[in-house]
Order: sequence, then structure tokens, then C-alpha cells
Amino acid sequence: FGLQASPRDTSKIWELMDSYQGSDKLALQQSIVHHVEYTLARTRFDFSKFHSYQALSHSVRDRLIEAFNDTNLHFHQMDAKRIYYLSLEFLIGRCLQNALVNLDLEEDYREALLDLGYKLEELYDEEVDPALGNGGLGRLAACFLDSLATLNYPSFGYGIRYTYGIFKQLIKDGYQVESPDFWLNHGNPWEIERLDVQYQIRFYGFVKKVWDHGVERSVWEGGETIMARAYDTPIPGYNTQNTIALRLWKSHPASEFDFSSFNTGDYFKALEQRQKAEYITSVLYPNDSTEAGKELRLKQQYLLVSASMQDIVRRFKRRKVLDWNAFPSKVAVQLNDTHPALAIVELLRILIDIEQLDNMSAWQIVTKSFNYTNHTVLPEALEKWGVPLIEKLLPRHLEIIYLINFLFLEKVQQKYPNNWGKLSALSIVEEEGTKKVRMANLSIVGSKFVNGVAKIHTELLKTTIFKEFFEMHPNKFQNKTNGVTPRRWVRCANPALAALYDRVLGSDKWVQDMELLKQLESNVSDPQFVRDFQMIKMENKERFVHWIRKTCQVDLNIDSLFDIQVKRIHEYKRQLMNILYVIYRYLMIKESTPEERKRIVPRSVCFGGKAAPGYINAKRVIKLINSVADVINNDHQIGDLLKVVFMPNYNVSNAQIIIPAAELSQHISTAGTEASGTSNMKFIMNGCLILGTLDGANVEIDEAVGRENIFIFGTQIEDVDNMKEKMRNTDPHEYFPQELLKVFTEIDNGRFGHNEELKWIVDSIRYKNDNYLVGQDFKDYIKAQQQVDDLYRQPNEWAKKSIYNAIRSYKFSSDRTIQEYAEEIWQLKPIKVPEPAVQKHER
Amino acid sequence: FGLQASPRDTSKIWELMDSYQGSDKLALQQSIVHHVEYTLARTRFDFSKFHSYQALSHSVRDRLIEAFNDTNLHFHQMDAKRIYYLSLEFLIGRCLQNALVNLDLEEDYREALLDLGYKLEELYDEEVDPALGNGGLGRLAACFLDSLATLNYPSFGYGIRYTYGIFKQLIKDGYQVESPDFWLNHGNPWEIERLDVQYQIRFYGFVKKVWDHGVERSVWEGGETIMARAYDTPIPGYNTQNTIALRLWKSHPASEFDFSSFNTGDYFKALEQRQKAEYITSVLYPNDSTEAGKELRLKQQYLLVSASMQDIVRRFKRRKVLDWNAFPSKVAVQLNDTHPALAIVELLRILIDIEQLDNMSAWQIVTKSFNYTNHTVLPEALEKWGVPLIEKLLPRHLEIIYLINFLFLEKVQQKYPNNWGKLSALSIVEEEGTKKVRMANLSIVGSKFVNGVAKIHTELLKTTIFKEFFEMHPNKFQNKTNGVTPRRWVRCANPALAALYDRVLGSDKWVQDMELLKQLESNVSDPQFVRDFQMIKMENKERFVHWIRKTCQVDLNIDSLFDIQVKRIHEYKRQLMNILYVIYRYLMIKESTPEERKRIVPRSVCFGGKAAPGYINAKRVIKLINSVADVINNDHQIGDLLKVVFMPNYNVSNAQIIIPAAELSQHISTAGTEASGTSNMKFIMNGCLILGTLDGANVEIDEAVGRENIFIFGTQIEDVDNMKEKMRNTDPHEYFPQELLKVFTEIDNGRFGHNEELKWIVDSIRYKNDNYLVGQDFKDYIKAQQQVDDLYRQPNEWAKKSIYNAIRSYKFSSDRTIQEYAEEIWQLKPIKVPEPAVQKHER
Repeated sequence: FGLQASPRDTSKIWELMDSYQGSDKLALQQSIVHHVEYTLARTRFDFSKFHSYQALSHSVRDRLIEAFNDTNLHFHQMDAKRIYYLSLEFLIGRCLQNALVNLDLEEDYREALLDLGYKLEELYDEEVDPALGNGGLGRLAACFLDSLATLNYPSFGYGIRYTYGIFKQLIKDGYQVESPDFWLNHGNPWEIERLDVQYQIRFYGFVKKVWDHGVERSVWEGGETIMARAYDTPIPGYNTQNTIALRLWKSHPASEFDFSSFNTGDYFKALEQRQKAEYITSVLYPNDSTEAGKELRLKQQYLLVSASMQDIVRRFKRRKVLDWNAFPSKVAVQLNDTHPALAIVELLRILIDIEQLDNMSAWQIVTKSFNYTNHTVLPEALEKWGVPLIEKLLPRHLEIIYLINFLFLEKVQQKYPNNWGKLSALSIVEEEGTKKVRMANLSIVGSKFVNGVAKIHTELLKTTIFKEFFEMHPNKFQNKTNGVTPRRWVRCANPALAALYDRVLGSDKWVQDMELLKQLESNVSDPQFVRDFQMIKMENKERFVHWIRKTCQVDLNIDSLFDIQVKRIHEYKRQLMNILYVIYRYLMIKESTPEERKRIVPRSVCFGGKAAPGYINAKRVIKLINSVADVINNDHQIGDLLKVVFMPNYNVSNAQIIIPAAELSQHISTAGTEASGTSNMKFIMNGCLILGTLDGANVEIDEAVGRENIFIFGTQIEDVDNMKEKMRNTDPHEYFPQELLKVFTEIDNGRFGHNEELKWIVDSIRYKNDNYLVGQDFKDYIKAQQQVDDLYRQPNEWAKKSIYNAIRSYKFSSDRTIQEYAEEIWQLKPIKVPEPAVQKHER
Repeated sequence: FGLQASPRDTSKIWELMDSYQGSDKLALQQSIVHHVEYTLARTRFDFSKFHSYQALSHSVRDRLIEAFNDTNLHFHQMDAKRIYYLSLEFLIGRCLQNALVNLDLEEDYREALLDLGYKLEELYDEEVDPALGNGGLGRLAACFLDSLATLNYPSFGYGIRYTYGIFKQLIKDGYQVESPDFWLNHGNPWEIERLDVQYQIRFYGFVKKVWDHGVERSVWEGGETIMARAYDTPIPGYNTQNTIALRLWKSHPASEFDFSSFNTGDYFKALEQRQKAEYITSVLYPNDSTEAGKELRLKQQYLLVSASMQDIVRRFKRRKVLDWNAFPSKVAVQLNDTHPALAIVELLRILIDIEQLDNMSAWQIVTKSFNYTNHTVLPEALEKWGVPLIEKLLPRHLEIIYLINFLFLEKVQQKYPNNWGKLSALSIVEEEGTKKVRMANLSIVGSKFVNGVAKIHTELLKTTIFKEFFEMHPNKFQNKTNGVTPRRWVRCANPALAALYDRVLGSDKWVQDMELLKQLESNVSDPQFVRDFQMIKMENKERFVHWIRKTCQVDLNIDSLFDIQVKRIHEYKRQLMNILYVIYRYLMIKESTPEERKRIVPRSVCFGGKAAPGYINAKRVIKLINSVADVINNDHQIGDLLKVVFMPNYNVSNAQIIIPAAELSQHISTAGTEASGTSNMKFIMNGCLILGTLDGANVEIDEAVGRENIFIFGTQIEDVDNMKEKMRNTDPHEYFPQELLKVFTEIDNGRFGHNEELKWIVDSIRYKNDNYLVGQDFKDYIKAQQQVDDLYRQPNEWAKKSIYNAIRSYKFSSDRTIQEYAEEIWQLKPIKVPEPAVQKHER
């Protein structure tokens, strides 16, 4: 079935559709009940809370769809330039509350539900977290979508609908156990399956050269084809009709029968082959330790970019006049890291092979349309793909990559004649050993702009890994410091704080314009304001205590300092340093006199985060944390003075409970390793102090909140190399401070269990292999922790500094980030969808 | 989430639900448009005919759900006894028209749609046929569901939701090519996914014996577990609120994490293992030529019976008082063939191992609840499973099978002491060679009643394959001649004929009570009535001609005799005899003088049907038919006198076009091979004459319509063995008639292509291996064909005899069959769901 509107007269359909659903109490109730009856087909004898959540969600979805349809139609009619955000991950979190808040219907539904026998918040908890990402990169993409919608930018997110996303983390005997997360098992009312939006994706095969009117053309044929089908999740903006799409692709077998690949008589084998198509989008980051796993990962990347670029080109071609040169004025593509870098090649392929543009025109169009965001400065984290694999899976793409590289290296040669060092550093193809395609180089060459995600990170890009590129094209490089959306991270996660802002500022405008928080600077000297803030923090801590009791069976002391480190477990993020300090603190407490103990600030140190399934050192750190927690939490001598908790399965919805309750948040990566961090921004927005190194976005947070309102410690970036050198050249017994050696000894002696693995963790840094400088920074870290304690003994001072963090966090709204992207990279103008004639609350 | 009603007050929900959707034109239009907007999220710039079909279907689905919910609630409140029909296949056909007809909303929707720009019939054609069965057995199950709903019997169909059902048959160079049928690719508005109705299914593992209060109990543990999830298709009755469920199971990975089976560190392997769970219900009849294929098929069978029996037991346990002895008075299970025979063992397992009943009580309950329908008399078609496979996959079930067999053989021993012949014939376990479990024996022993599906078939059961069982338990055996539903096969497929009946009989009551057609006997002498009938047939032929032109690119002569043979391709069904006769006829025509030709009755011989992918002889017959068609249809000398067509991909919706257009229908299996046939019934209901052998239901059709209204030929059952003996002992050149030898020669000589395979088809019967007696019956077949021609030259006589077939077909309504099952096997009473206070057309 085609996509063209049928010539028949269907005007009556659109006439009948020209109204909106009501939002008075009865209308909402009827809408919920309608879904109980017709969508869920429920009768009263088999109705549960989960069904109630489902019915509610469908009712909210109806309202999302009204706005979504209006938006699509309006952008279409306005022939809007759109930004397409391509990302292998979107950690969007739960949808229900976010939708209600952004649609301004939370209160209305709350009342409508009470009457039907349900509390809205109970139903929020029935929603399963979508498992579509690993960490910060995916969450950033989600915050960006929220800002794009709220700021009325015509835009699309494109990603993959993984059936099995990031694993569910369980803790068994202190170890991380990975359990598949069947997040779709309970259905997903937030997506719209687009049965008719699907594209053919080819793998393998061969390239045939044909002559066509004197021009040689390439035709990619054979191999196997599968289909990518679209699933749209509407993303509503706050206080606007604009509602954009996160379009996720799922692989399907092709339903057309391909006679040429048919193997007579082997129907069941053919069937099996086809079933495998569904595996492609099945698992987030399939195991790439094997060749088959690598191939699957590359298939995922290609599926995403091919389906997305076909979709973008189709949309472009729907315009009244087909003018390819107008493409960059209608399409901006942002590559979130290099994972979707093949999009550059795929668009070239479509333009040259299918639309039959000449190479140079096509290349012009591509390089004006793409932009690339880098997320790492670790050279070993830069993505590369072996030429043999690309040749096998995407033979035509390899040809095009060589073409791009040829055109590019010609220019390099012009600029730096016979400079082999430059050529070899800049080349897209790495020639040493097995030839490899450097995806970062491809992305830079194919993009108009390249950006880092924090000031220090962008500077590092220019001076280290992308030095040669920066010298050649200095104007290509920009910085776009990350941000987080205040809708989810304040308005949804911390409703009490939001209500305080509303009350003091007189409106909820700050939710869209965080700079308004500046006006609160003077309120910090108002004791009532400070008390209100403290009260809110206490309530959030209570909610957290309750959740920890349920989740971890640990009772936290509500009066203790809630000290949180939540993020993926990684050596560079130094959760190890944190837990080693906890041991040090425990030993200190054990050694202290009863009199001394009275002065000790009680702490609850809470860790959370997942370790990659194959990352043994990271998984051992989790084991260490849990082993230490076991001993400390069961030591009656210690009582409430210290508790350690590992919160399993850190995800977006847990974060919404954890972050508002945090008082201290640790962001302690070795300087020069973390690109941004970004979660630090969520913590300060919720009025939390940061204990951190001058790394990633901490640097800018330090500037924004003022050094007096943040705990900074550790080796600074310019000293890192020297300190590593020193570490390698110093006897460990001299290099490590006594405080830390003592901790090592206790671990070695089995104080936290006679477990070889615990020793091995220590070994991972003990023998001149402390590459992340735990030993180097430990003493300074102790000192900073001391300052934390000192300040916490002055609750009002602590509260004031926390408030400064909150109200000076406006720079870290993703609205600011997106505005910068739109103006400085995408050249994109907002287009506000007209509000319906009858306003929501009058229907 | 549990299934129990929450104690909270939700009465307002049910109050708001206490109304029905309107059926005036505007209400229907609004309902359609509602789904365009909210279910499909469509805007006017991307709206197609398929979307219109989807919206319409969802609108009809809403109305089905109202009745469905009413029915479920009412049966629940009435504590109804229910019949559970277990079948591995349900060939239900398209749902839209059937639903509209049974809901009496076809006219209303037709008008509502016209106004919106659509013709209802166009949208019917957008629906994809569900691919949930192979042939007659599955279609029978579908007809039964329609009758169960229409006759208000509380009932459930239980089956499997195959992702890839029966293959799509394509014809390439005359050969059958099997293409996977992705019938779910376009969504399925007719099913309700029951996220919360799912059961754990275990495979493999071991049986542990535990002592519990002095009793030894068996606990089946370990192995792997998956989930079966329910999908309900509402099946509406005609002219009643009663709407029953076809509940289909789909396999899913278990979402609970099983620590015991967890293999540390191998997350991706564990994930892969889990993904395989989805394969279990993926393919209808997976290839069982390999051990892995066999295992998968047994897994399917067990999944169906385990999920269904768990569901049945759960429903039973919801009654106010738990009294296991009441089970047979609340539950009747019908096994459609032996495929679900493990249900007997599974219920025993649940009762003994889980509900802790003692063996004998459990066995009493089981044998009062089950009944078994046999569908074959060919001993080689009786299902058997190797003991080693069952032991591996279902270790506890094997123990129980041995227990059943022990109890049963004890009785045999009592009745026939030391009669080893009896014991060996009756035993559930076959001891020769690899031990096997005989599923038919298991089914008979575990059932209250056993039935065949036509008179002659049941008699054969009693005297051949089940002789010993019949002697032991004569009262266990019954006959239940199959039937077909007049709703789909007359009212939907042949609306003009239905309208004629309505008009002459003064109402549509005949649709529910086919015996009313008796009143039309006198109308056969009314020339106007006969003309009306002829006109209707002509219109149906026109529709068919149009469809054949589109599908097969062949132009049929509308005045030719439409001679149809549609059914699975099988040697015993003798499509080979038919095509050999076509060749004979072709040769006759070629040899005839122009004068003779004028008297020749023009014929269009149309074949349809699928061959099992591995059934080489059957596939070669398809090739022969197409080769012959190629020659004849392109022979200009022949012109319109003879056409041969192979209609690809015969399925339910094609049948609805083919059958009403048929004038002659062939059912020519060797006597004693076809259990019923059943499609013969659809043909006579549509006023078509049968050319057939005295086999299956032909015997009863012969009795019902009268020998003067049917063409019967061929060896009769009592002579079959002698004739086979004769065939084996006679020189082929004497055994085969000259007419047939001539045909062989033409094939051998390459008249229909120089293709070895065509000779091999002839070889399949040529050398004393004509086991289905094609040679023996050929002359009689020619004679019968002559009679057909003679009669067709008298159009009025032909029409009258056709009408007699139609109006004397009432016995073959599945309503009659179901009534007999209900009264004589299930002891089931109809329970009519109260009609809503406000009638449909007044809303």
C-alpha cells in the first residue's frame, strides 16, 4: 500500500476529526474507562492496578496523539527545516508523568483518578523503564528531545527499538548478575507502530558497475535484505502544542519473496534464515568480543542509518519541487558520537547510486548537512571497524569511504605537501595492521561542525586526539556544553522544589526559562526560604529512605549525610577511590573514642551503576562495595554513623528518587577522562553539593556556582601526565599514602571476607598500575571529605550552599544547550504549532 | 500483578462502562474516525485504503468487545459448564465481514463508509488471511467455533498463535514454491493481547521424589521454563450477544530471572538462550524430518496443552467452593485429533503433583472430562512419539503415561486374561523397535467418548484401526459427521443466494436453522426461482472469472462448466486422476471433427491446494497440472473448449470466491481414505453438483441429496482390498485401460514438456504401485464425466439438481454437528447472554 493520499474524497473524515478530547473530570474519566473497555477488553472481575495504569496511559496517549498529529501536519505544511538527531541510545525514562506534566494535565488526571479509586502516583510506579540505553550518552539524547519539543524546534530523534535493552542488574552474594530486561513484556502504550513506514535494508552482496548514458554507475545487489519498521514515541514539549517524534527502528524479515535467493525445497531453512532478521535489533550492544557479535553491532548501526536516511530523503522528496541543493537548508543531521557515522556514507550512496547525482554535488550536500558530537577523549575509545568486515557487509559503502578519503587526502596533500605524518593521522583509513576505518575521522571529514560536550573536553579535542583536524579546519570545532531538562529533573522528580519556585517566582515560567532562577539569589538570605528548602530536602530524603528499605533492606539514618555516587561503574570514574575512602573512614571510626565519635558526621554512602558484563575490574568493584557494606552495616559498634549501600539496577526512574534526596554527590574521575559527566548537573539542580575533580562539566559548574559552593580536589589536568610518570617511577610503598596502605592491608587480611577477588581489586592499582591516580589523589580526597564534614555540621550553611547550586544551575538546562546547537550549528528556527482554537481547559 | 479484583472501590469505572456504542450512521463514522486519529495516529497527508481498513476493523472490534465482555461476565456469573476445543490449527479466515454479518451491522457500516469515501467490499480485500492451519482439520475447528457461539454454548477454542503459519504458495515455472507467510506483518486488529494471562511452561529437567505426610510426591524441576501468553480473538455468534474466545498462545521468554540456571559471566549466551523461547510458537508444523524439528513440534503440542489446562484449572478454581469432583460437570475438553493428547497427561500432572489429589481420583476426573475426535483411518497417519524424546523433554509426563498404561492394561488383563495380542494392540506404549507412545491409544484410554467425523469413517474406526478398543468399550465410540457454517459459506460467501433465501422464506432465520431450507423443495418447480438461481450462479462465475484473470492471467469462458477440485494435494485425494482425465479429454477434443466439437461441453478445470513442502509426489502433480495447463491454454485449436487453471495459494478467502462459482466439484479420493472431506459440504450448500467416490461425507451427501443429484463412481470400500490385490497381480498393460495408457504415452513423449519429473509422476503409479487405484477407477471416472457433460447440456436440469444440493444440505450445517456434540458428548446446555436493554439499532 502506498503512501500517497488517495484521490477519493475523504474530506468528511477530516471534518469529523476536527475536534479535541475534553479535559474536564468526566471527559477524562470516560476516556480512561473507554480504554478499560475497548482497548484492554476488561470486565470487573479481572481488573488490576496495572490495567488501570494501562487505561490511563492510553487515555494520555490519545491526547499526545492529537498534538503529535497537529505538529506533523503543521511542519509538513510549513515545509520546515528539521534537525534529525541520530543516536544508538535514547534513555528516555518513564513516559506517563512526563507527558502529564508537559501537557499540563497532571492535576486534572489526579482528581479524575481519585474518584475512580486510584492515586496517580501509585500508577506512575506501574510503568516499566524503557531500556534503550547504557548511560550518559543515551540520557543526553533524551534530554535533548525534551528541549527540542519545548523550544518548538522541528525535529526527529532516530534510534533503535531494542527488544532487550540494557540488562537488569541484580546483586547476588554481592556480585553483579545480569538479567535480560524484557521491558516490552508488559506492552508499551507510548509507541505508535507504523506498519506502513518501513524500509528495505541490504547486507552483504556485491557491487555491479553499469554504464548508463555514458556514466558508470554502481548497483549494489544480492546479499540479504530485511525490513526496518518505524515505531514512534511522541515527545511532548512543555506548555506548547509542539510534540515531536522519537522514531525507533525494529528489524523484520522482508515479506516479499526473493526468488533469486530461494533454495528449492528448503523451505524451513529459508524460514529460519528469515527469522534471524528479527535478531538484528534485538539486543542493545550485543557482545562484540566475538566476530559474530561485531558484525551484529555493525548491522545495527547500518540499519539505523539506512532506515533513517531513507526516511529523511523520502520526506525531503515530498516537497513540491525537487531541488537537491536545497537539502542542507531543509535537513540537519546530528551524529551522537560516531555510532551513526555511516549515515554520511549512506546518504552519499542514496544521492549517487539511486538519485543519480554526481559525486561532487552529492558530497557538497552531505558535508553541509551533517554534524558530529564527540563524547570521549580516550583514544582507545574511538570507534574503528576492520576494512574486511565492512567490505563483506557493506561493499558499496567501503568504495564510497575510499572515495571520500581520496577527495579529502587530496586536500591535505595540497595544504601539507608530502607530509606523511599529517596524511597518516588524518586518513579515514588506518593502514597499520589490519586496515581499519576510523569512524571519528569519517565523521569529522563528513561534517560541517564537530563539537565536544564540555569546555575542557572540547579544548582537549583540539589539542590531543583531533589536533591535526583542528589545525586544518579550526572553524569546524565548537563547544556545546551538555545540559539536562528541568522538566524531568526538577518539575517531575522534585515536585516540592518546583512548587517552591512557582510560589516564590509567581509562576512556572522558570520551567521553560531557567535563567529566571537568578531572581532567587536574594532569597537565600531569607531564613524561611532556607527552611522551606531544608524541609523539601528532608521529604525527599524520607522518600529515598523508604525506597532503600524496600529495595536494599537497609535502614538509613535520615539525619546522616546522604552521599551519592551513581553512574556506570568504570575505573576512570573511580568508584574504587570512594569505597577505599569509606573503608578508611570506617577504620577511623572504629579507632575513635566515644567522645570523638560524638563529633563524627554520620554518613550514608550510596553507590549505584551498572558494569559492562565483560568488564571484570568494574564488576569486582561492585563486589568490594557490597562486601564492605556487609561488614559496616552489620557492625553494631558503628550504628548509624556509617552505612554503605549499593543500589541495584540504577536507571532513570531510580535516579528520579535518588537525585532529589542527595546532599553530596561525587564526580571524581581522574582529570581529563570524563567528557562531561552531565549527571552532576541534575544533582546541582536539585540543590546538592558536589565533591569532584576539575574534570568534564565540573569545571563549568565550579565557575557557575562559585568555588565556595563546591568541593574540588585532586590532580589537575595539566599535571596528570607528570603524576602518572611519578606513579610509574615510585615504589608503591612510597607512592601510596599510609592511609591507603592501611586500607589495603585490611582488605588483604580478609576484614571484608577472605575472597581473592577483593585482593585482585587492590592489585589492579597496587603495582605501578594506578593509571587513574587513586593513590595520588587520595590524601587530597580525604581533605576534601573533611571539609564536607565540617560544613555539614553547619546545617544552614550547607543548605545555603546547596540552594546556590540549585539556582545557579540554569546554564545547565538542556534548553540552553539546544538553543546553542540550533543557532550555531543547525541554523534552525523554532516553528510553533498553532494552539487549538479552544484551549485545553475549556473543552 | 495479580488477577484478583482489588479491594479498592472501582464501582464508578463500571458505572461509566454501562453503555454501548451507537450504531446510527454518525456514530459509526465517528467511531471509525476516532480510530483513524487515535489508534492509527493518521493525518490527512498520509492516509491510505489500508489505514481505512484498519480504522474500520478497530471500530468493529470495539463492538465485538462489548459483546465479548458481556459474555465472559455472564458465563462467569452463571458458573457455566464450558467446552474447551483444543486444536493445533484454526483456519478462521478473514474476520471483518464475518463479524459485521454476525453482528448484523454490515448494511449500517456500508452506508457509513460510502459517505466517508469508501466501498465496504474494497476494504474487505485489505484483510490478510490468518495462516493458522493447513487444511480441513483447522477449518473444521473454525466452523465449530462459529456454531458454538451462534448456538450460545459456553466455550473456548485453544490453539497456537503461529507467527509464520502455513506457507504462501507461489507458482514459479509450474512448480510450487513455498514462501513464508508473514500474516502478522500488517498487524492484527482482531486479537486482544492478554499481557496478564500467561503461564509458565517447563521443558526438560528431572523428577524429584519427596515424602510429604507419608505420601510420595513427584516434583518436576530444573530444565528450562518459558512463558505462554494468551491472545484472544472474539468469535461472535449470529444474531446473539454471545461472543466466545479463540484463545491462542504465543511463547515468550520468562521474565523472571532463574538464578539456578544462570551461568556467571555469560550474559549474552543466556540472552540468546532466552530469545529462542520465541521460536517455539513461531512456525506451523516445523519441519519434523529432523530430530530438532520433531522436538520443536512436541514442544508446541506441550505448550498448547499445558497453557490451556493451567488456564482451565485456574478458571475452575475461581468458583466459590473448590470441589474437584465437580470438575467434569464444569469442564469438557475436546481433542481435535491426537495433537493435543498430552492434555490428558498434563491435567493428571496438575491434579496429582500440584493439587495433590490421589492418583485414582485424578484419573476419574480426567476420564470424565476428555473426548477425542479422530480424523484419519490411515494407520500410518496415527501419531506416535519416541519414548526417549518424551523422557528427555517431559520426564514427569512419561512417568504418568506409564501409570495410565499400567492401570489400563490391568483392566485389559482382567477382561482378556493372558491375551498378549490384545495387550500389545491396546497398549499405549508400542514396544517394537524404539519404544513409542501411541497418541491415539492414549487419547482413547483417557477419553469418555471417541468419535469419527463421518458415518463411513466411524464404521471403519470400529472395524479396523480401533477394533480392539471398540470391542472393549463399544459405548465409547460415536459418530459426529462434520459440518460447515452457513454464516461464512453461504451468507458471507454467497450474499446473492442468501438474499434469495431471505426473500423466498420471508426472513433470515434459515441462517441459524438450515432445516428451514426444506420449505424450498416446492420452489424447484418454479421456473422463476430456477432462473434466479441461475442468475446468481452466473454472477458468482463472473466474479470468479475476474479473480482468475487477475490471479492467473487466464481468461475463462463464462459459459463453460466450472469444474473445481480444491483441497490439499495428496495422492489419496487423486488430483492426479483428475489431471490425467483432463489430458484424455484434451486428446479427445484434438481428435474430434469440427462437427463433433460443436457438441463438446466446454470445461474450465480449476485446481487449487498446497502440497506439504517435503511431499515430492504431490509437488510433482502440481507441476504436471501447470505443464498441461500451459499446453492446453495456449492451443488455439482448442480455444474455449477446455481451460486448465492451477489457482495458487488456496486459502479461506479464495475459497469464498471459488466455491460459490463452482458448478461441479470433485471429491474423488479412493474409497476408505478420506475421513470426511467436509469441503464437499460447502460446495453443495452453494448449489454445486459433486463428482465423487463413495468415501467420507460423500456417502451421506449421496443419501441427503439423492443419487439422481450426484455423480458417484469408482471402487467401493468393500472392494478396495481386492482391487489392490488385482492391481499388484496384473500386468500394467492389462491393468491400466487403453485410455490411460495413451495418456501415459503422451506424457512420456514430451507432449507437456520434456521433463523427467512428469514421467516420474506416471511412474508413481505405473509399475504395480497404483495404491490409490487410479487405473482401476479411470474408466468409471470417464463414464461419470460423460454423465456430467450430458446433464450440462440441459441447463435447467443442471440448475434444478444444483438447487436440490443446496436446499438439501441442511444436515451439513456445523450447527447440527455441534448440537450433537453438545447433547451426546459434552452434556452441555446453551446459555444465552442477555441482550442489552437498548437494542443495537435503537442506540
